[in-house]
Amino acid sequence: MEYRIEKDTMGDVKVPADKLWGAQTERSRNNFKIGAPASMPLEIIHGFAYLKKAAAYTNCELGVLPEEKRDLIAQVCDEILEGQHDDQFPLVIWQTGSGTQSNMNVNEVIANRAQQLANKNIGEDEPVIKANDDVNKSQSSNDTFPTGMHIAIYKKVVENTIHGVIQLRNTLHNKAGEFKDVVKIGRTHLMDATPITLGQEISGYVAQLDYGLKALQNTLPHLSEVALGGTAVGTGLNTPKGYSKLVAEYIAKFTELPFVTAPNKFEALAAHDALVETHGALKQLAVSLNKIANDIRMMASGPRSGIGEIIIPANEPGSSIMPGKVNPTQCEALTMVCAQVMGNDIAVTVGGTQGHYELNVFKPMMAANVLQSAQLLGDACRSFDEHCAQGIEPNHDVIKHLLNNSLMLVTALNTKIGYYKAAEIANTAHKNGTTLKEEAINLGYVTAEDYDAWVKPEEMVGGLK
Amino acid sequence: MEYRIEKDTMGDVKVPADKLWGAQTERSRNNFKIGAPASMPLEIIHGFAYLKKAAAYTNCELGVLPEEKRDLIAQVCDEILEGQHDDQFPLVIWQTGSGTQSNMNVNEVIANRAQQLANKNIGEDEPVIKANDDVNKSQSSNDTFPTGMHIAIYKKVVENTIHGVIQLRNTLHNKAGEFKDVVKIGRTHLMDATPITLGQEISGYVAQLDYGLKALQNTLPHLSEVALGGTAVGTGLNTPKGYSKLVAEYIAKFTELPFVTAPNKFEALAAHDALVETHGALKQLAVSLNKIANDIRMMASGPRSGIGEIIIPANEPGSSIMPGKVNPTQCEALTMVCAQVMGNDIAVTVGGTQGHYELNVFKPMMAANVLQSAQLLGDACRSFDEHCAQGIEPNHDVIKHLLNNSLMLVTALNTKIGYYKAAEIANTAHKNGTTLKEEAINLGYVTAEDYDAWVKPEEMVGGLK
Amino acid sequence: MEYRIEKDTMGDVKVPADKLWGAQTERSRNNFKIGAPASMPLEIIHGFAYLKKAAAYTNCELGVLPEEKRDLIAQVCDEILEGQHDDQFPLVIWQTGSGTQSNMNVNEVIANRAQQLANKNIGEDEPVIKANDDVNKSQSSNDTFPTGMHIAIYKKVVENTIHGVIQLRNTLHNKAGEFKDVVKIGRTHLMDATPITLGQEISGYVAQLDYGLKALQNTLPHLSEVALGGTAVGTGLNTPKGYSKLVAEYIAKFTELPFVTAPNKFEALAAHDALVETHGALKQLAVSLNKIANDIRMMASGPRSGIGEIIIPANEPGSSIMPGKVNPTQCEALTMVCAQVMGNDIAVTVGGTQGHYELNVFKPMMAANVLQSAQLLGDACRSFDEHCAQGIEPNHDVIKHLLNNSLMLVTALNTKIGYYKAAEIANTAHKNGTTLKEEAINLGYVTAEDYDAWVKPEEMVGGLK
Amino acid sequence: MEYRIEKDTMGDVKVPADKLWGAQTERSRNNFKIGAPASMPLEIIHGFAYLKKAAAYTNCELGVLPEEKRDLIAQVCDEILEGQHDDQFPLVIWQTGSGTQSNMNVNEVIANRAQQLANKNIGEDEPVIKANDDVNKSQSSNDTFPTGMHIAIYKKVVENTIHGVIQLRNTLHNKAGEFKDVVKIGRTHLMDATPITLGQEISGYVAQLDYGLKALQNTLPHLSEVALGGTAVGTGLNTPKGYSKLVAEYIAKFTELPFVTAPNKFEALAAHDALVETHGALKQLAVSLNKIANDIRMMASGPRSGIGEIIIPANEPGSSIMPGKVNPTQCEALTMVCAQVMGNDIAVTVGGTQGHYELNVFKPMMAANVLQSAQLLGDACRSFDEHCAQGIEPNHDVIKHLLNNSLMLVTALNTKIGYYKAAEIANTAHKNGTTLKEEAINLGYVTAEDYDAWVKPEEMVGGLK
Repeated sequence: MEYRIEKDTMGDVKVPADKLWGAQTERSRNNFKIGAPASMPLEIIHGFAYLKKAAAYTNCELGVLPEEKRDLIAQVCDEILEGQHDDQFPLVIWQTGSGTQSNMNVNEVIANRAQQLANKNIGEDEPVIKANDDVNKSQSSNDTFPTGMHIAIYKKVVENTIHGVIQLRNTLHNKAGEFKDVVKIGRTHLMDATPITLGQEISGYVAQLDYGLKALQNTLPHLSEVALGGTAVGTGLNTPKGYSKLVAEYIAKFTELPFVTAPNKFEALAAHDALVETHGALKQLAVSLNKIANDIRMMASGPRSGIGEIIIPANEPGSSIMPGKVNPTQCEALTMVCAQVMGNDIAVTVGGTQGHYELNVFKPMMAANVLQSAQLLGDACRSFDEHCAQGIEPNHDVIKHLLNNSLMLVTALNTKIGYYKAAEIANTAHKNGTTLKEEAINLGYVTAEDYDAWVKPEEMVGGLK
Repeated sequence: MEYRIEKDTMGDVKVPADKLWGAQTERSRNNFKIGAPASMPLEIIHGFAYLKKAAAYTNCELGVLPEEKRDLIAQVCDEILEGQHDDQFPLVIWQTGSGTQSNMNVNEVIANRAQQLANKNIGEDEPVIKANDDVNKSQSSNDTFPTGMHIAIYKKVVENTIHGVIQLRNTLHNKAGEFKDVVKIGRTHLMDATPITLGQEISGYVAQLDYGLKALQNTLPHLSEVALGGTAVGTGLNTPKGYSKLVAEYIAKFTELPFVTAPNKFEALAAHDALVETHGALKQLAVSLNKIANDIRMMASGPRSGIGEIIIPANEPGSSIMPGKVNPTQCEALTMVCAQVMGNDIAVTVGGTQGHYELNVFKPMMAANVLQSAQLLGDACRSFDEHCAQGIEPNHDVIKHLLNNSLMLVTALNTKIGYYKAAEIANTAHKNGTTLKEEAINLGYVTAEDYDAWVKPEEMVGGLK
Repeated sequence: MEYRIEKDTMGDVKVPADKLWGAQTERSRNNFKIGAPASMPLEIIHGFAYLKKAAAYTNCELGVLPEEKRDLIAQVCDEILEGQHDDQFPLVIWQTGSGTQSNMNVNEVIANRAQQLANKNIGEDEPVIKANDDVNKSQSSNDTFPTGMHIAIYKKVVENTIHGVIQLRNTLHNKAGEFKDVVKIGRTHLMDATPITLGQEISGYVAQLDYGLKALQNTLPHLSEVALGGTAVGTGLNTPKGYSKLVAEYIAKFTELPFVTAPNKFEALAAHDALVETHGALKQLAVSLNKIANDIRMMASGPRSGIGEIIIPANEPGSSIMPGKVNPTQCEALTMVCAQVMGNDIAVTVGGTQGHYELNVFKPMMAANVLQSAQLLGDACRSFDEHCAQGIEPNHDVIKHLLNNSLMLVTALNTKIGYYKAAEIANTAHKNGTTLKEEAINLGYVTAEDYDAWVKPEEMVGGLK
Repeated sequence: MEYRIEKDTMGDVKVPADKLWGAQTERSRNNFKIGAPASMPLEIIHGFAYLKKAAAYTNCELGVLPEEKRDLIAQVCDEILEGQHDDQFPLVIWQTGSGTQSNMNVNEVIANRAQQLANKNIGEDEPVIKANDDVNKSQSSNDTFPTGMHIAIYKKVVENTIHGVIQLRNTLHNKAGEFKDVVKIGRTHLMDATPITLGQEISGYVAQLDYGLKALQNTLPHLSEVALGGTAVGTGLNTPKGYSKLVAEYIAKFTELPFVTAPNKFEALAAHDALVETHGALKQLAVSLNKIANDIRMMASGPRSGIGEIIIPANEPGSSIMPGKVNPTQCEALTMVCAQVMGNDIAVTVGGTQGHYELNVFKPMMAANVLQSAQLLGDACRSFDEHCAQGIEPNHDVIKHLLNNSLMLVTALNTKIGYYKAAEIANTAHKNGTTLKEEAINLGYVTAEDYDAWVKPEEMVGGLK
């Protein structure tokens, strides 16, 4: 392989000749061979591209960067955002906890690509743009990385997670309406209980997702605050007057998202409670989705020896040995995602506790986990929606059979003959394998006419009064 | 021991003669010998007392309970709330997951105590109040337990947690003001960095707690919704018209807290995402407090071989073997609480995922964990505030010594002579064990006058521009 | 209330006159009002009683403590172990993280009680035994607390947890034998699968518990190592020659458990990976028990609209509103315990990560969580065994019906006619609501005779070959 | 793009013409667009290659597969193991929880590649090898996937994790020896304590890793058990006599690792406690490593305003804004890995609890998390070792200064003049900013000669007696 020599404050480093990165990226590549290469999420790199462009515009407007440099930097940032340089970011999550090396990776790629755009030779001609002095001007890793991760996560949550959850929520909302008159047996403790409609059950899922979406949206204001302008320790050293506010405005403009400057930069560098907060809401959604997916697979279980009250789409052969088997695979994928999100929550939480003094150095790990959860939840909701939820249909025969067979209809008699006599009827029918009506009459507590008048499942679900 | 015979639908049970509870409580006592007795939090029992009274008033107002019964029930509830019967609730958390047995415990105690108040014999005379038909009228365990736990947790969060956190937050806010001009060395990666004021550092802690309080308050609306009126499966079977709304109003009136009826009762019984949500915010506070307590103990470390920049109160002898030792014990208690809250979050989360069909049966465990976290966080914040935070003082000598000795003041030269030359100065001073100024002059990059003019720590913390 | 004056190195403290504790205990009581009083587990106090007695014997044998003092100390320790002084230990978990104050609580109670035994006045007459110089001789909080917690946990695990798990395991093992010929439908993905016997299913549970017990026992050697002899930082400062080994032998003698001295005292003070390790095994058991309890409640679900393949004991009325309802309450208690144990694992893990230099200061929290998990798991297994597992019976009618109705018996045809044709038979029967045999013949793939010869559920479970 | 038509029991599917996979893989690709493509770990695919080859040999030896087919299958498996077909496995973790679709992916790729090897056309000519009937013979997804994941994880743990941890452990062991006479101040509660040697401190780390390695090795026997032979539900349906044992022997032979057949196949399919167990040990290692890395970065903190007792290698420029800064980046990478492992433990635990009946359907998620933890821990240990631990050096000047300045040397006087007088000396010196010796003499408790004779730091670390 061909190499060129790049330099940093520690000396010379050999870098592959066809790569745009520089000395510090190469050092990091060699010093952190942990897990798969290039695991640093590209979304964070793209977050950096937004902020580097915003910083260039701000520096220029405040008189500390010439227009030509601003435009060169901005041009490379746009190229990065278009995905042209995705293979120029080889670093891993498991590097320095401030993400310094990824910040330098971006600085170096921008500087070297600018050199190309200016028709100069990388590593030979005098740099038209310097990685530290120009691209990183008025910045530190300590404020850029948190800014980059906020941008990446905010975008992911808004564009993927919320979108996916809403898509599923809307399907369930429609199903709740569609099945509002499908009276079925309710179940508590997994045991037969009083009737409910399938629509009512599903309306509970919709309510769960609505609360979850609300909770997630509640976290967005904290996440919309960017650290940029705090530089090394939060004091804003080496930034021109007016920088913090203006750079956040540029970020908002370029991303078309409502980013603002963090009112307290010390918090913004030393703590990442904003990520803990957002992930807490993602975890809440995982909790809700887990309940929903479990219910659906239990209700769809069978086809002959399970509950079988609903039918879900058969998307693929279910078994490599049992012919004709169809499984609730979307429920399985979704609940696996939920378990992952619960795990990620601990990683984010532990990382969040361990800020020291002016800096939290668990940034890349925290950000990567939040991004993964946000991605997986959105994707899994969409997948579950399209390949399962939209196709849910009641199995009316089974539903009716199980409903009419139930002993818990006896609850309707509580207010007529008292809890104790009603219990006696149910217990006797259970013991004898008979129906409630038979035993109600046998025991002399209710006439046949009264029974029919009083025990009407469809009137036992009558909505909340 | 003396016994009397109590009955339920399964038959006779011997109950200690001096106890007010009945058959079902006694069965549960015998069937669930798991952990310490009476572990079901009293706060939940008191929550039940509020709701039983509210239900009695509502039932009466809607014409299904006579006034005499209402008043007897209410009188016992008031006695319970005054703590007169705290020893009548012997059940454990680890019972049925719906909390049915604690609901019956409350029903039985109210009915039997009413019998006493009516000068009747318990277990012999006809009951003036029936546990199931009167006390539990228009209710089910499935809607009472979640209501009781929401009442208990809401009260605890508002009266203890938020109060404690605000107390600490206010002390820190005052300290941030008090120390706003105490310039000290900043630290990132635990390593020396550019200067910051002690007040700025502490302002970051204040910001963390403000975000945490905001996050906690965001969860209160969901928590303020009560399930009562849903009865067995959420359909409201066996409740009179208008019951749900009215009973929530009575609860709000009696507790003086803004409880409302849950708009979707299916969610309110089958999922306890409200607890997951509230505990998520408690966990976020734990994350913040952990960071704060860690910083303070590191900064107070010493007295001679640590960082020693601040002095914290000496509350007790620190060592049984090392005379004269004083330890950051409040930091330790607080961070142990934080670890516990992080653990509790998983218990609550796992419980939250496992609702099945119309009911989540992890209620007592979830509620107990949220209550414990809310209690411990509030208490620990108050303890930490009174015995540590209020007494924090800067150790000015140490702070000055460490600041002036630092190599990171070189950052002030970046914008004057560029990053590379500045780095060379710092590296040379580090290697030679000299000062920055000496090497800056030796290397010929800066004159003594310029150095003094440019490198002023107190101007390096100048706030965000 | 009456008080007496007690002193420590910081000065005078007023202590309730009727209490045996001294100045440092009282300071801690006042400085740590966090959560319920006296939350420090008594098991740890009793662990201390063993080690204080062992230390007195060792000190005496090594010539640094007179026999009279040894005997007085030992006498009080024995009283503590008999439970005579349980109300003399008022401190909480949330104190200093080294447990220093509980060590001093024990030292003070022993010294003051010895004063009584010697017919002297506490706080007035010269102490016959000094808390620091005699009771705590050759010790530090830093090595006593870990020793006390290892003793407490080892005993709890061996005497409660393992005992409880084995009791349940043996019941299940018997049930597996009893039901070895009860052929039923298997289920994978919650969907019907090929047959299995109920005994085989339960044998899987037995295997899980056997692995869990093995894993738990693997952790005992680490837990059997005691820190005593390390004193303040692990170097054994201020201990007589031969102390470490001998004191561990005395602990082993007094507890009748195989304790040994930790080979590396620095690890024994600064890290509590032994607790992390033991709790990891407890968590594994929780995982197993959760699976088992879930299966049992699903198989017992019904009585008419669930799976209903097994019948579990009806221990109490299941519903305050639905008469005649019986719920899988032991499964619920057990799975709530499992969720708690999973949460506790995080608390223990987080505590374990945060040792600093020569000491981990999360000791009381870690120990309390391990003790709770060990207690709850043992208790819950016993409760589940006695009130559920022992009473499990197959519902033969349901089992047969579901088995014969199943489409997955078609798998038996795979090796006869190939996967594709077998799948076609199953799919056709599913679509038409017919039986496999009908469609197998209709499609012309199998004769009736061959079908009967090939598809025999009882031969499809034939054990592993 | 060009396509060909592939079929399965549900009908035709268009598959990219240049790919070896078949209908079921393609269905899964389309139905599970969740997260990044091809996230199913290649290690599991390679695990499948071993077991498919082993199954072919076993089937052949037991007379149910001809030699030609065996050899073709084995040839493709070898190609897969050489990495020739890594791009033929496009599926994600978030598919069906049994991993059925990845099993079919492997079956399809083997069958189609065999077709190529036999110079036939894929999708046109009659298959020489059938994916279900030949490659999957005597197997089910339900026993192959757990077998594949056990193979993958066992290999990863043995070849990467244990190797990496031992490498670091050995370096630390050497350092412990090297620094055995470097007396320094000990620290408990982050506060100054009695002396210790740097070697002793590091020996504690070695002990931690030794316990962790032991714990990890304790889990290997469970992990060495393979499910193969259980087929669909654990009964071994459709396997020839002798299959289970023989196929495990072939797996052991091909992998050169001690795999055996699981004694209870029901457990092996329905529960993955083996993964929970192994990951529990990985988490324990993470706990230990977190402590070690934290200590090292605290001891290396500075260079001028921290603890500064050790010097660690400067591997890269530490700051993009603060010139000359060097950070403990390897500590940061390692502790981020530890946090991730703690999170993964929850994901694995939650997955482990949720087996239902005969199958746990969280397999791919569980396996992926265990593999990631095993990879990251091994890699991070090696990286930490090579770029940090090997280069640790004491900063003798700082160590001596901090030691001699310490007040905790007073502990040496406990046994000479009693705890109370010793405390008075320390407190007075602390208050006056003087030395212990000065105050010891001033207070008249010790002569200068005695002080020098009694207070010798190097004799205070004298090993355990």
